[in-house]
Amino acid sequence: MPQISVRGQEMPESPIRKLAPLADDAKKRGIHVYHLNIGQPDLPTPQSALDAIRNIDRKILEYSPSQGYLSYRNKLVEYYASYNIKLTADDIIITSGGSEAVLFSFLACLNPGDEIIVPEPAYANYMAFAISAGARIRTISTTIEEGFSLPKVEKFEELINEHTRAILICNPNNPTGYLYTRREMNQIRDLVKKYDLYLFSDEVYREFIYTGSPYISACHLEGIENNVVLIDSVSKRYSECGIRIGALITKNPEVRKAVMKFCQARLSPPLVGQIAAEASLDEPGEYSREVYDEYVERRKCLIDGLNRIPGVYSPIPMGAFYTVAKLPVDDADKFCAWCLKEFQWEGETVMMAPASGFYTTPGAGRNQVRLAYVLKKDDLVRALLVLSKALEAYPGRVE
Amino acid sequence: MPQISVRGQEMPESPIRKLAPLADDAKKRGIHVYHLNIGQPDLPTPQSALDAIRNIDRKILEYSPSQGYLSYRNKLVEYYASYNIKLTADDIIITSGGSEAVLFSFLACLNPGDEIIVPEPAYANYMAFAISAGARIRTISTTIEEGFSLPKVEKFEELINEHTRAILICNPNNPTGYLYTRREMNQIRDLVKKYDLYLFSDEVYREFIYTGSPYISACHLEGIENNVVLIDSVSKRYSECGIRIGALITKNPEVRKAVMKFCQARLSPPLVGQIAAEASLDEPGEYSREVYDEYVERRKCLIDGLNRIPGVYSPIPMGAFYTVAKLPVDDADKFCAWCLKEFQWEGETVMMAPASGFYTTPGAGRNQVRLAYVLKKDDLVRALLVLSKALEAYPGRVE
Repeated sequence: MPQISVRGQEMPESPIRKLAPLADDAKKRGIHVYHLNIGQPDLPTPQSALDAIRNIDRKILEYSPSQGYLSYRNKLVEYYASYNIKLTADDIIITSGGSEAVLFSFLACLNPGDEIIVPEPAYANYMAFAISAGARIRTISTTIEEGFSLPKVEKFEELINEHTRAILICNPNNPTGYLYTRREMNQIRDLVKKYDLYLFSDEVYREFIYTGSPYISACHLEGIENNVVLIDSVSKRYSECGIRIGALITKNPEVRKAVMKFCQARLSPPLVGQIAAEASLDEPGEYSREVYDEYVERRKCLIDGLNRIPGVYSPIPMGAFYTVAKLPVDDADKFCAWCLKEFQWEGETVMMAPASGFYTTPGAGRNQVRLAYVLKKDDLVRALLVLSKALEAYPGRVE
Repeated sequence: MPQISVRGQEMPESPIRKLAPLADDAKKRGIHVYHLNIGQPDLPTPQSALDAIRNIDRKILEYSPSQGYLSYRNKLVEYYASYNIKLTADDIIITSGGSEAVLFSFLACLNPGDEIIVPEPAYANYMAFAISAGARIRTISTTIEEGFSLPKVEKFEELINEHTRAILICNPNNPTGYLYTRREMNQIRDLVKKYDLYLFSDEVYREFIYTGSPYISACHLEGIENNVVLIDSVSKRYSECGIRIGALITKNPEVRKAVMKFCQARLSPPLVGQIAAEASLDEPGEYSREVYDEYVERRKCLIDGLNRIPGVYSPIPMGAFYTVAKLPVDDADKFCAWCLKEFQWEGETVMMAPASGFYTTPGAGRNQVRLAYVLKKDDLVRALLVLSKALEAYPGRVE
């Protein structure tokens, strides 16, 4: 039997999904599981998108252009303009989810052995896509104590060597909910310019910023237009995770040309998804306001609730719909598995993503979990109660 | 401005799509272009699939499982059983098109530098996915004169070295329409067993076999069950290229485990596409029969027509809906571009895929093109007439 590849062996298991078999077992035992582990919004998809799918009047579900439909890209130009991001339709390449945009950015821009600097904790799948492309993630630590703000420029420069080709940020951040300040974004811009790096910027949560702070897109930074690759997705902003529609956006024509070869190889992005995503742009503003207001309330509910549990600490996330919290446990991986395997309170338990999977530094985030606030407030309240009971009962509790 | 990667530079342009800008220009000049270049069937998608999409009754278009919906995989088990391929739902991983199945097979099974033996001419995007994975395609020649039958075992063994990890076949074949015989499949089985290789087998055209010859799937070969990875897609059999639903199928649990990590990283295959593909399996058999009968007629029309044009030769393809034909031209790349740029006959021209992009041997297939018979018969007849006029007028004609 032939061996699987080194790459296949090195691929990390998803910290978000690896406990799924335990959750399935718990459900089989009749236990209700509160899913705080995954960023699958429970809020409705825009009606305009659902209607557009229902009204598809085609006889053939044919290939779409490899770059995505022009009509959709044209409408996206207006969408980005509303965030003061000035694009033409040519700058936009539609991808199969934000995931494919990350993978194609790496494949097109990075050689095997090249290094990408990423602040950690970081979205775990970046590591997986880097392994796929033979590139190497070098993480720069941010800490829960400092609210996950970026370290000083010198810390970045310590990591920069002849293999460094890119900085990757997620802003607002998954998993921390952190929003980079203007000062931090300028610092990144200066580094990108000084060392002529790519800046991959994943900004899929821009709709979800809860403080008065400004949203500084990588596309707002002057003088590095040819270095920026924006990663985007409609999954979160329209509760459309299943349609697999994202985008890779860059002003750099050489990068676009290289990316397009990967796009042509996979023929086309999903057709029906593009129809839904395009229609979503017509949804009245009320939709976004309601979704936003809902997350504001949930954020308050979750963060207040967490910080009221003895021994638990969560910074206040400024955006997205996650937080990374510190728990009074010996090992969050063990604790999360224990919640699913051995614990229940009144027939209920909680599923969380152990934060260790979001760090590459060994031992980092060991007592941390990522929680997504994608449940209704009543369920969040109940989940917090169940979590507090679990922490009381857990044999590996530490103070 | 940072350099794009070596991989991005090496990626071939799609031979099927690279002439698209010229075709667009021709259309802007008011010229009607017959598309013989791309395998986009013009036949309708099954009504059951269109209805299923119209009847989606969900409020949220959420992530599906990374492996794909169990209900769909269960129904696929029955589908494959009808071809005497015995599977369980666990053996099946749903992918974003057959393209993703090829890419994930390579990423999971091959290390950078590993070699895959592929009979050429071959589906051009295999080369692109190999480059993505850092693997190397080594081609073994088949010739139009021998009807693209497989060469003797010795020719394979000449290519096998310590880097060889896999054989890849497409059966029935794109671009040639060739169907491997039992003898040829047994020969491949023996090689796979002797050298403990993977056998990647792309069988997306199994519905389209026009001779009485049996369809021998890689999954029918005994003794190499753990070596076989079957690549599949619903794009062609249901005229559903746009929904991006394929499958990666293997009895090898280690391969499945590695592939699943790549699947988890990209979260999930398209949701709406899975609903459409699952519903397609309920379409009455009449649909497949009508589609089949239509291709039988078109095949006859195209191949007879080609062989009647002076200087043109096409073998009779046994399956799929392509043929590779030899033209009396100096260079098919130039000729195909010339047809779009400089030629028209009564306001019409033809677009074909130059075969050079399906070969890796330099100079091979230089006077060949791939033609897809995905047009209505009347249009095919007309396209053949336009092609014959183009060949008469082409300045680079050779005898």
